[in-house]
Amino acid sequence: MRFGLLGAGRIGRIHGLNVAARADTVLAAVADASADAASSLALAVGAEVGAAEAILADAAIDAVLICTPTDTHADLIEAAVNAGKAVFCEKPVDLDAGRIRRCLATVEISGRPLMIGFNRRFDPNFAALEARLRAGEAGAIEIVSVISRDPSPPPVEYVKRSGGLFRDMMIHDFDMARFLLAEEPVEVFALGSALVDKAIGEAGDVDTAAVLMKTASGKIAQISNSRRASYGYDQRIEVHGSAGMLRAGNIHETTVEIATAKGFRADPVQNFFLERYAAAYRLELDAFVTACKGGKAPTPTGLDGLKAQILADAATESARTGKPVSVALEAI
Amino acid sequence: MRFGLLGAGRIGRIHGLNVAARADTVLAAVADASADAASSLALAVGAEVGAAEAILADAAIDAVLICTPTDTHADLIEAAVNAGKAVFCEKPVDLDAGRIRRCLATVEISGRPLMIGFNRRFDPNFAALEARLRAGEAGAIEIVSVISRDPSPPPVEYVKRSGGLFRDMMIHDFDMARFLLAEEPVEVFALGSALVDKAIGEAGDVDTAAVLMKTASGKIAQISNSRRASYGYDQRIEVHGSAGMLRAGNIHETTVEIATAKGFRADPVQNFFLERYAAAYRLELDAFVTACKGGKAPTPTGLDGLKAQILADAATESARTGKPVSVALEAI
Amino acid sequence: MRFGLLGAGRIGRIHGLNVAARADTVLAAVADASADAASSLALAVGAEVGAAEAILADAAIDAVLICTPTDTHADLIEAAVNAGKAVFCEKPVDLDAGRIRRCLATVEISGRPLMIGFNRRFDPNFAALEARLRAGEAGAIEIVSVISRDPSPPPVEYVKRSGGLFRDMMIHDFDMARFLLAEEPVEVFALGSALVDKAIGEAGDVDTAAVLMKTASGKIAQISNSRRASYGYDQRIEVHGSAGMLRAGNIHETTVEIATAKGFRADPVQNFFLERYAAAYRLELDAFVTACKGGKAPTPTGLDGLKAQILADAATESARTGKPVSVALEAI
Amino acid sequence: MRFGLLGAGRIGRIHGLNVAARADTVLAAVADASADAASSLALAVGAEVGAAEAILADAAIDAVLICTPTDTHADLIEAAVNAGKAVFCEKPVDLDAGRIRRCLATVEISGRPLMIGFNRRFDPNFAALEARLRAGEAGAIEIVSVISRDPSPPPVEYVKRSGGLFRDMMIHDFDMARFLLAEEPVEVFALGSALVDKAIGEAGDVDTAAVLMKTASGKIAQISNSRRASYGYDQRIEVHGSAGMLRAGNIHETTVEIATAKGFRADPVQNFFLERYAAAYRLELDAFVTACKGGKAPTPTGLDGLKAQILADAATESARTGKPVSVALEAI
Repeated sequence: MRFGLLGAGRIGRIHGLNVAARADTVLAAVADASADAASSLALAVGAEVGAAEAILADAAIDAVLICTPTDTHADLIEAAVNAGKAVFCEKPVDLDAGRIRRCLATVEISGRPLMIGFNRRFDPNFAALEARLRAGEAGAIEIVSVISRDPSPPPVEYVKRSGGLFRDMMIHDFDMARFLLAEEPVEVFALGSALVDKAIGEAGDVDTAAVLMKTASGKIAQISNSRRASYGYDQRIEVHGSAGMLRAGNIHETTVEIATAKGFRADPVQNFFLERYAAAYRLELDAFVTACKGGKAPTPTGLDGLKAQILADAATESARTGKPVSVALEAI
Repeated sequence: MRFGLLGAGRIGRIHGLNVAARADTVLAAVADASADAASSLALAVGAEVGAAEAILADAAIDAVLICTPTDTHADLIEAAVNAGKAVFCEKPVDLDAGRIRRCLATVEISGRPLMIGFNRRFDPNFAALEARLRAGEAGAIEIVSVISRDPSPPPVEYVKRSGGLFRDMMIHDFDMARFLLAEEPVEVFALGSALVDKAIGEAGDVDTAAVLMKTASGKIAQISNSRRASYGYDQRIEVHGSAGMLRAGNIHETTVEIATAKGFRADPVQNFFLERYAAAYRLELDAFVTACKGGKAPTPTGLDGLKAQILADAATESARTGKPVSVALEAI
Repeated sequence: MRFGLLGAGRIGRIHGLNVAARADTVLAAVADASADAASSLALAVGAEVGAAEAILADAAIDAVLICTPTDTHADLIEAAVNAGKAVFCEKPVDLDAGRIRRCLATVEISGRPLMIGFNRRFDPNFAALEARLRAGEAGAIEIVSVISRDPSPPPVEYVKRSGGLFRDMMIHDFDMARFLLAEEPVEVFALGSALVDKAIGEAGDVDTAAVLMKTASGKIAQISNSRRASYGYDQRIEVHGSAGMLRAGNIHETTVEIATAKGFRADPVQNFFLERYAAAYRLELDAFVTACKGGKAPTPTGLDGLKAQILADAATESARTGKPVSVALEAI
Repeated sequence: MRFGLLGAGRIGRIHGLNVAARADTVLAAVADASADAASSLALAVGAEVGAAEAILADAAIDAVLICTPTDTHADLIEAAVNAGKAVFCEKPVDLDAGRIRRCLATVEISGRPLMIGFNRRFDPNFAALEARLRAGEAGAIEIVSVISRDPSPPPVEYVKRSGGLFRDMMIHDFDMARFLLAEEPVEVFALGSALVDKAIGEAGDVDTAAVLMKTASGKIAQISNSRRASYGYDQRIEVHGSAGMLRAGNIHETTVEIATAKGFRADPVQNFFLERYAAAYRLELDAFVTACKGGKAPTPTGLDGLKAQILADAATESARTGKPVSVALEAI
């Protein structure tokens, strides 16, 4: 299976190297607005550098990985599926749900596979938790809790273009909540504050936020986010059910612990996503390749991308208006 | 310091034995609607059995512990302070905030000390966390999380008289959130479901609930409650701040762990409040005695009781209406 | 059951207060070489102060607690049982195994109960571990590990009179190893060094030591001791068996944890035995009272005291000679 | 840097794949007594299959990895260094210390680098612990403890050829103890039993063992081994020092934990060395390549291999004779 990579930035490079490291996939071509980024990766793995258009037009390329800036995702997905490619696209499809819907309609007509990069579903810890949840170990789900805190805030310039915390950061947690709940939320209430960086608040965004959601059957999900955690990249999930609680915790940098008169001190947790989710990125690619080879639709789907976006939009509106927002994801 | 105990049920008995065990306090008299309950405790500690009225009229009694059913609290507080007693009353003062206000006015006029039994503030773990928070170890507070899950639901008959989960169970967590935030919430949003016991839902109450609150400066508090946790009495707090995270976890029944092919298994957590908060009850009494002896007002005050009740009322209304509710505790 | 207490020092005071706190026992009289120590405790619990001889002669006293200096234990045990008392004696019976044997012979003739204060058997964590071991949770025992480290070394003057680390400190661990193994060691090899305090080495003792023991069937026990642990009183046991591993860890001062850029820091462990083993002392007394009331021989017995002493003697000899020492406890 | 691999069994395959995965090294040729093993690996990485002699004679090969059966190690090391290759050899160099000495003399004359595969030194957790120990975080070292338990015993046929537990399994722990102590042991006492598999005992070996060692300055090391641990591959180290304790624990399969009425259950630990030490093998190769490129002698050296073997021999003798054995590693 031959891949073209569109976008060779931080995350694109990860995917590109993972494609190159597999025995059954080849990274054939790399495109990036920065010639340096493209050629540096291409050189490392023996790929060619090319324009996105050329890659999409190359009949010898089976699949494309879209890791370009968000505002190009929908156009590239459409172009790629129309060119007959299988497509893996980093989240989000677009910051506008209407644009996502149109894009997904094009994908559906094309009949080509589309997978969205909600990498956390493939983290071995979270995936194991979800499998055990589905196997009934915790009984009926009652409360899903997701905690996600970045080690430090992004530059304000990034924040301004990001669509806001709920769409840029918490979207991963909306997907995780849906993944764990196995039932769609029908109501979203959000609170947000700019406590970490005043400039983020001045840019109209928040850096500290919490959300409550409820499903039709009464299951509750709570999410909290912060753009700054002194102790590392905090990624925890917990599901309380009728038969027990399942949770997955952080991974510390090492297992070393020191005990002195000040107490017992363990390492900070792994910092940041490239380290914490290294295995998740590999397993995510594996799921994409396995699905494509087997002629099955890969998951998470474009619809998963749309639904997470709708929840992020609802949270953004709720935080702005101070009122809960109803959503109807089941009907989509 | 000589005490009279009004109400010798489960919690009254704890307080009575703690009074009797101290070198500087005497449990002089016990009143209870059940003659057996009163005499059993009185016999064990060498106290007399008496009617509440007689105890309040006894000039040799300095302080009373009110551990009777909730609907008698306000009347007994008023009668006791008017009789010149120092008063310790179990939460809540009343299920009606207006009644609490009138009662506190009477207390204020009397000039007598009143302490409300929010025992969790005195848990050595939570108290240490709060002290370290005040000392600035976590920096500026950003997100306060409180998890509280009972091991199993109370009988529906109890639920019907309880005022509902937010007033009966979560009131402790509202007090804890206020204790940790050190700033009053201004907005409350609540979700609740009856997932544990259908009969609780049919009685108009919930058994699974979550709340989000925000303070004027943007601090966020999240609380979740369940009436049933298979693994014990789950009592956790966590504060995320600008400089770090402080958290206090559960206490397992023993430190024993077994490792087999199934994994590493630790004990369930201590189950239930009489065990988990045994030290808290002793230290709570100690704080009351120390304050009374030193001529200082004991904490938590009647006002703390009122404010927690207002938050519980707001959550109850929010869960009913589906809308956030504003509160103005600073003004009280 | 009426008790006389011989020796009202640190440990005697604990036992005396525990006797006084029970509903079914009375601390009737206290003897101590220091009149202050005796009267301070006696006053607190309403006991009388008396000479040891008078207490032993008092027919209204059923049992005595011997908490005097070690070199008086054997004489007092003999006098007490000859006076018809039930006897609880702090470890060790004597530093000389021959003297212990003669003392136990006297006890046997008297027919009176004697219990030795190996308090750690009654620690709820260690007791639970032992019960689960006996129930077969770890399968057949293969390796028993005991770690015991004091927070700080005793004064050299104490060390000089102590009989040495193996008899003074590790004797508890020899008893614990026997308790867990449920089979007698037949061989003892010991290493010791003075690494903590040179003066201890100059006094002919060690402050850091490790022992290996083997039973006839090949089970292995390893013990390590240090007279100094910066992080508290380190008390851990671990049993590796054919079906799994059972272990019991330390108890931290609180459950509070702080996470910062330096990592996750938990509290030091409880420091020192009065705190760590508070429950063990209560439960140990309970076992003594229950046995005496039920007409059963209390455990650990005088023989347990003798066997631990023989192991301590063997370790002392092994550390001195550099050779393993054989012991024949089964034959006793 | 071009590598030849001698021996493409389980461990050889790991090293071969690691060589092939690096950008700066090439696995050029593979030799194995099993043509299938050799060609399977060669095919996967694009290497050639060849005889060991041919690989050693090939001037285009810079370094060889020796992963053949133990009894061929010394001969191959000698042949390889005489052919001018840099050599990485799996432990042990030989089961006979005299043969090791002769081999190392040949290596020294050749001037070629030799590194011995004590992979655990490169485990990120253990390496971090050692670095912090050297930085003084625990103060002066007093007690080093190493626990090493395999998940299940090897076949008896393997055991018969293995040199015995102390040379085959505990040799890693002897190296680890030396690595941590930073001072040579002068005395070794060992106990061993066949508790896991009677057939191992009948073959003259043990499957459960413990060792005590002492250095000239009085530092103590204790090691325990079992050939069977139901809960995974148990690999723990702990160093007690004057200023504190440093320890490194096991890695569980995932971070998932389930809480039910039976307690809190975490996963078994990683099972077995290919998984637990995957990173260690990569980092070990990295250290070899870095040293060779930089013209420095790689560590652990052949002398480290010899010294660990001498300790293993001493333990074997001690377990056989029941007496401690003195060793003089400083003089080597």
